[in-house]
Amino acid sequence: MAYLNEKLSEEKVFKDPVHRYIHVRDRLIWELIGTSEFQRLRRIRQLGTTYLTFHGAEHSRFNHSLGVYEIVRRIIDDVFRNRPEWDDDERLLCLCAALLHDLGHGPFSHSFEKVFHLDHEEFTQAIILGNTEVNRVLKKAGADFPKKVAEVIAKTYKNKLVVSLISSQIDADRMDYLQRDAYYTGVSYGHFDMERILRVMRPQEDQAVIKHSGMHAVEDYIMSRYQMYWQIYFHPVTRSAEVILTKILHRAKELHQKSYEFRQPPVHFYSIFKDEISLEEYLRLDESVVMFYFQAWQDEEDNILADLCRRFMNRNLFKYIEFNPNLQMKMWMELTTLFKKAGIDPDYYLVVDSSSDLPYDFYRPGEEEERLPIHLLMPNDEVRELSRQSEIVESISGKKRTDHKLYFPQDLIDQLSSKRKVKEQILQLLKSN
Amino acid sequence: MAYLNEKLSEEKVFKDPVHRYIHVRDRLIWELIGTSEFQRLRRIRQLGTTYLTFHGAEHSRFNHSLGVYEIVRRIIDDVFRNRPEWDDDERLLCLCAALLHDLGHGPFSHSFEKVFHLDHEEFTQAIILGNTEVNRVLKKAGADFPKKVAEVIAKTYKNKLVVSLISSQIDADRMDYLQRDAYYTGVSYGHFDMERILRVMRPQEDQAVIKHSGMHAVEDYIMSRYQMYWQIYFHPVTRSAEVILTKILHRAKELHQKSYEFRQPPVHFYSIFKDEISLEEYLRLDESVVMFYFQAWQDEEDNILADLCRRFMNRNLFKYIEFNPNLQMKMWMELTTLFKKAGIDPDYYLVVDSSSDLPYDFYRPGEEEERLPIHLLMPNDEVRELSRQSEIVESISGKKRTDHKLYFPQDLIDQLSSKRKVKEQILQLLKSN
Amino acid sequence: MAYLNEKLSEEKVFKDPVHRYIHVRDRLIWELIGTSEFQRLRRIRQLGTTYLTFHGAEHSRFNHSLGVYEIVRRIIDDVFRNRPEWDDDERLLCLCAALLHDLGHGPFSHSFEKVFHLDHEEFTQAIILGNTEVNRVLKKAGADFPKKVAEVIAKTYKNKLVVSLISSQIDADRMDYLQRDAYYTGVSYGHFDMERILRVMRPQEDQAVIKHSGMHAVEDYIMSRYQMYWQIYFHPVTRSAEVILTKILHRAKELHQKSYEFRQPPVHFYSIFKDEISLEEYLRLDESVVMFYFQAWQDEEDNILADLCRRFMNRNLFKYIEFNPNLQMKMWMELTTLFKKAGIDPDYYLVVDSSSDLPYDFYRPGEEEERLPIHLLMPNDEVRELSRQSEIVESISGKKRTDHKLYFPQDLIDQLSSKRKVKEQILQLLKSN
Amino acid sequence: MAYLNEKLSEEKVFKDPVHRYIHVRDRLIWELIGTSEFQRLRRIRQLGTTYLTFHGAEHSRFNHSLGVYEIVRRIIDDVFRNRPEWDDDERLLCLCAALLHDLGHGPFSHSFEKVFHLDHEEFTQAIILGNTEVNRVLKKAGADFPKKVAEVIAKTYKNKLVVSLISSQIDADRMDYLQRDAYYTGVSYGHFDMERILRVMRPQEDQAVIKHSGMHAVEDYIMSRYQMYWQIYFHPVTRSAEVILTKILHRAKELHQKSYEFRQPPVHFYSIFKDEISLEEYLRLDESVVMFYFQAWQDEEDNILADLCRRFMNRNLFKYIEFNPNLQMKMWMELTTLFKKAGIDPDYYLVVDSSSDLPYDFYRPGEEEERLPIHLLMPNDEVRELSRQSEIVESISGKKRTDHKLYFPQDLIDQLSSKRKVKEQILQLLKSN
Repeated sequence: MAYLNEKLSEEKVFKDPVHRYIHVRDRLIWELIGTSEFQRLRRIRQLGTTYLTFHGAEHSRFNHSLGVYEIVRRIIDDVFRNRPEWDDDERLLCLCAALLHDLGHGPFSHSFEKVFHLDHEEFTQAIILGNTEVNRVLKKAGADFPKKVAEVIAKTYKNKLVVSLISSQIDADRMDYLQRDAYYTGVSYGHFDMERILRVMRPQEDQAVIKHSGMHAVEDYIMSRYQMYWQIYFHPVTRSAEVILTKILHRAKELHQKSYEFRQPPVHFYSIFKDEISLEEYLRLDESVVMFYFQAWQDEEDNILADLCRRFMNRNLFKYIEFNPNLQMKMWMELTTLFKKAGIDPDYYLVVDSSSDLPYDFYRPGEEEERLPIHLLMPNDEVRELSRQSEIVESISGKKRTDHKLYFPQDLIDQLSSKRKVKEQILQLLKSN
Repeated sequence: MAYLNEKLSEEKVFKDPVHRYIHVRDRLIWELIGTSEFQRLRRIRQLGTTYLTFHGAEHSRFNHSLGVYEIVRRIIDDVFRNRPEWDDDERLLCLCAALLHDLGHGPFSHSFEKVFHLDHEEFTQAIILGNTEVNRVLKKAGADFPKKVAEVIAKTYKNKLVVSLISSQIDADRMDYLQRDAYYTGVSYGHFDMERILRVMRPQEDQAVIKHSGMHAVEDYIMSRYQMYWQIYFHPVTRSAEVILTKILHRAKELHQKSYEFRQPPVHFYSIFKDEISLEEYLRLDESVVMFYFQAWQDEEDNILADLCRRFMNRNLFKYIEFNPNLQMKMWMELTTLFKKAGIDPDYYLVVDSSSDLPYDFYRPGEEEERLPIHLLMPNDEVRELSRQSEIVESISGKKRTDHKLYFPQDLIDQLSSKRKVKEQILQLLKSN
Repeated sequence: MAYLNEKLSEEKVFKDPVHRYIHVRDRLIWELIGTSEFQRLRRIRQLGTTYLTFHGAEHSRFNHSLGVYEIVRRIIDDVFRNRPEWDDDERLLCLCAALLHDLGHGPFSHSFEKVFHLDHEEFTQAIILGNTEVNRVLKKAGADFPKKVAEVIAKTYKNKLVVSLISSQIDADRMDYLQRDAYYTGVSYGHFDMERILRVMRPQEDQAVIKHSGMHAVEDYIMSRYQMYWQIYFHPVTRSAEVILTKILHRAKELHQKSYEFRQPPVHFYSIFKDEISLEEYLRLDESVVMFYFQAWQDEEDNILADLCRRFMNRNLFKYIEFNPNLQMKMWMELTTLFKKAGIDPDYYLVVDSSSDLPYDFYRPGEEEERLPIHLLMPNDEVRELSRQSEIVESISGKKRTDHKLYFPQDLIDQLSSKRKVKEQILQLLKSN
Repeated sequence: MAYLNEKLSEEKVFKDPVHRYIHVRDRLIWELIGTSEFQRLRRIRQLGTTYLTFHGAEHSRFNHSLGVYEIVRRIIDDVFRNRPEWDDDERLLCLCAALLHDLGHGPFSHSFEKVFHLDHEEFTQAIILGNTEVNRVLKKAGADFPKKVAEVIAKTYKNKLVVSLISSQIDADRMDYLQRDAYYTGVSYGHFDMERILRVMRPQEDQAVIKHSGMHAVEDYIMSRYQMYWQIYFHPVTRSAEVILTKILHRAKELHQKSYEFRQPPVHFYSIFKDEISLEEYLRLDESVVMFYFQAWQDEEDNILADLCRRFMNRNLFKYIEFNPNLQMKMWMELTTLFKKAGIDPDYYLVVDSSSDLPYDFYRPGEEEERLPIHLLMPNDEVRELSRQSEIVESISGKKRTDHKLYFPQDLIDQLSSKRKVKEQILQLLKSN
């Protein structure tokens, strides 16, 4: 246990635009930050392709991970410490889990996961438990310490209070990213009074709860979240970039499988194309590497790959229309036929993208991303689920909102000069929407 | 002239964290932003290696270039328009020059320019005048329009008022980067009342001047600049990363010249190593490409290259001590000898780095970066140079401050277990400082 | 019309913490600001007794009135001007109405209006139309100009677009006070992206509408409003101060009617006690005057008046419990009896206060404070009422929330040492809640 | 000592716009805040007449006093506690001195002190030591506790470290008011990184020093202070209001001494006119009372008193020109003569006002407001005075800047229609400047 509690001779301080300062006094945390696996998060953007819509959103997952760590540190050191419900022996475990919770993210995670059937959470587990610098540092704190950290992140750790700090509907992860993403994009939505929320958090046996007096601050946080999803995370232009990115990866894989001869062969992608990527190979993939290939592939002979890469690099994105999958499947099929006639491959150039979000839910059994509901601590010490107390939250609770859009390259259609008839039909269908 | 004044059917608006919104109504500006040469600025960080010290500083030159454009647009549209001294025919020329002024920057400009004797200003000229998308867009506004834009940026344009908006000691360039870099790093130094400064700017025949009533706002701006230089731009940790980056480039070039067999051959660097890089090749170089190589080179057989790349990628930087070149040359030479004895190549591992800045100057003839002094418009319409009116500015005017540091790898020295004597001598010399 | 459009030789600028700068170029506006009736608003706090809960809330209605003016000015000059639906001849009428809309407020308006059956809107009309400096300035712009300004404020003006800028559910009044009150209290709730809302406002024949793309910003504004009402405006401690203030006014009036001999006779209140206050007398009433009397009355012989004044001056407020008028009338009656037994006059010391708010409504016929609903301008130029488009707004639309509290002086009860039994019974009843 | 360390059962929190939250856990502090003498500070503006120039500056000394308390609390609880140089037994003494340091301020202190030869520091001592609620609360912590608090504020307390937290050139008082006054006025000058300064403060035997690494933050603070003085505190329009206020007080005293029959007799001023005000009477004077009289005096028969009061109430201030006492005494005398000829009493209507400030000084023996210089703690543990280390501070150190202006009523001069010659001569003299 000695190493676990070892302090730095002098506190390290990171200047952070969101939390002002991030404080590190534990040697364990300091050494984790210095590992190559953690430093790699500097080369993976927090918001993937969002920077093509909001130019300020160029910040990395390194930023965010430090932020989550700092929030958990403040909860523990400023609010929980010395309360009987809190066991301070769990402190460093919480801090490590907070710091490392996103460690397994790859470049443009969302698209990569979708195309290559990866799961960043599995990689997080693998990095923490595998032959890595992170694992070697964690092991200094105890042979089973890496496993405990992995369990907290996997939500299987026995102490659910610890889990709830990292994964609930009002955890440090969400509180950091809402504020951070608002800060870097410059939008005014991500504001809520985190300092107040932290001050009214109380440890309970199996979760952190919120004192009743902080309910309005929590309402405000939930509305922030709602706005951030629809204003930033699901912005249709960002999704257009995401669509193109996805199609580049599909095309490259397809070409590789068809033994197309690349001018810049996708060396870093060979194993991922075969669905057998190793941890070491995965760690070598970052957004610099992806951008390196995309830049080179602009000059490939394959028109589709080259065109898509040029679009991505130079932000020449697809346009979109609203799309209702229940009513407009016929239109989509007609467009598919017309695109083929026009010589535009609909597999790559006519894409439906859907986004949906559940702003808050009291109970979501079996959902992919199960997060604990928020509980209020009432003046009489009763614990009540938030939506039973707040009208605002009740009104949006459990209501899933979904949005579908159909993406296509307006410029290619506009250039169909030799196929006037097809062009007209396509334009008419798109406009009829 | 038709194209020059063509407006978009609907104004485009970029959300910007520093200026809140960036407004584009001119088709010319919109098309310039869409060129591949301008989009490339997204892949070049505004502050080079600073993100290794201030993790928030991950923003790109794309951000900054839009910001400079917006400031100039506000000066012209909100303050200068309709004043007799201002000729609105120069408007779009100013906006283009503002937008494009940094177009020639390459990856980690500072280090690349030093090592390879490049000049980003020459590349800016080349991109504007050469066979590029930017040039093709500019030419739509007139055959000689690219040349005029290039002249404004080169400060040779005949209308000095126009030049002064882009290049003076209080130009849009500086006003944007001070605020922007402060915002992304999160420091509190870059604050000054830009809105007030813009409101008191007045066009004169050969420069923009500041109404006397705005003097204190300008003082505040100059103090901001002073603080930003020493707190951010010359931060010793950033310079350590810069030193390592420079040494990587040196080493790679040296190895290439010695016909070392790279596992990942420096294809993108061949022409730059030979000092004969073409514009096309230059444009292909961005920070993704550089990071791609650095990552790969961590596994090179050459120890020095591999070690330096690992340091850069994983932020394992050199430590430093203060260094006085007048008094401590002997110490440096002794250290050089000892490093050789210890088997640590001093050419790569014992580096003096110097930074110096002139916070404000009234007149700097022959300086590399000549910028016009700031002039106040007094109540009696007299124009006075700022430092003659402001005690604060007078007190720092023309005073160059220089700082020297000696960088070295503390960890390598600490590991010199088999050479105890040399190690001790090195440590003693370093500590004696 | 000459005076109406007369400009100042140099624009006047007020530094404002909320809108950064407030710009005045019209002589008419400048002269209105200089009238004694407008300057009087400096002596009336924007938020009445709220400063006793949130110490920062000491700002005056003068602040707010300038802010409303500035927002309307920006809407007209930056967004509406040059649109065919907008008639710029209405500009100064709008600006005057915006500036003067709160002119009739008296000291601690809420309480005074309740106790003395006054209506600040009637006084606003009287000041604009009566023998005042404001009226004299307005008349310079046309004999019927005061009447038109009064009509806009009274919502009877024929051009409903003009009215909607000052009085709707998203008017300049609300946009200013939400932000301003948040700024001065320091809470994080009042944030919404006003700049965006202004940019998407569009003039229509009978109202200002919001472009569909701005819907989320409007949702955010409505949530801000909701939070501000319950966090700030209806804060139970503020209401406690309001209760005491009301009771002071009641007591003073009662004593005056009973010919009690005041040490500091309520000269400024004589006519208001008789319900026959003149405009001139009303204008002499401000919060300095009220505080002057309250301070003096701390030394009156009448115990109740002196005690209540000491409470108000020294913030020794009443405590409160939740109160349900449907279920707890019996308790209240019992408490009334017990208070009498204990010698604490329940008329002054046992007070139920209720607050209620309707965060948004689509249609409120016959309501006292009718404000126009918010309409969205859809991409197909259809105009839709907001709650039909926004789920969030729909969920809170038309839902009135009411809160009742019972206020009492805990300290007086605690001091009931000689009446142990009564004291115990009172405490038990209060605790049983 | 029991009471001294008694904690509240639940921490009280004030929402503060500058420090976000102000935390009170000590019963002693809570009870001091509740005293009538402390609550009285709500009725005295922090910045006197500045609200007539910057309309946002309506905040009271109550605000500021809480802020100073909070800063000292953070220094002690977050930085000093557990350091060997710090004796935590001094904690509550510091907190009380911080909270109460401005207790003796009267209405519009600056003018009142000048006209009536008062000293707010003497009244602070008197309130703490006299027959007051504050004294009674302090005595609960020990019979000699009030005396110790008074000594800290008077800078005579033996522990100079304690004194330096309240009174030095970088004390909590200054750090609060610079930020607070900037916040409420809305100017961008008062920004500096207080959090950083607090973090690098270190207790030493006889003062708090600043770690060398925080030097730039301190430079920034000193520049903030410099700007605030000249932009806000010495703003010529504020000084114009101050001039008028002073002249009102002079006139009222003069009339009283001449047995003028007031319509509203200056009852609250009788003793102060005779230079024999008691503590009780002093405490009854606040800005509401002053404004009450000024409002009433607008209707006095005495033209000068009525005119000056109308000017003050309605912000119809004097205009000004620059004035050089060395060169322009003759002009002043000529103007005096001409004013008399014109029937405008120069004693009340032709006033020279001077302001001067010393932005920083290393040593000011015998100065009225002696404050300790700032000392840096160097890496080698040496303590160096700031200006010996910082070029910026050195450059402004000890340099007193003085500004003189001549104030006069432009409107009265403009109305001199019957005395055309005199009017012309006056205007010429004023313009010649």
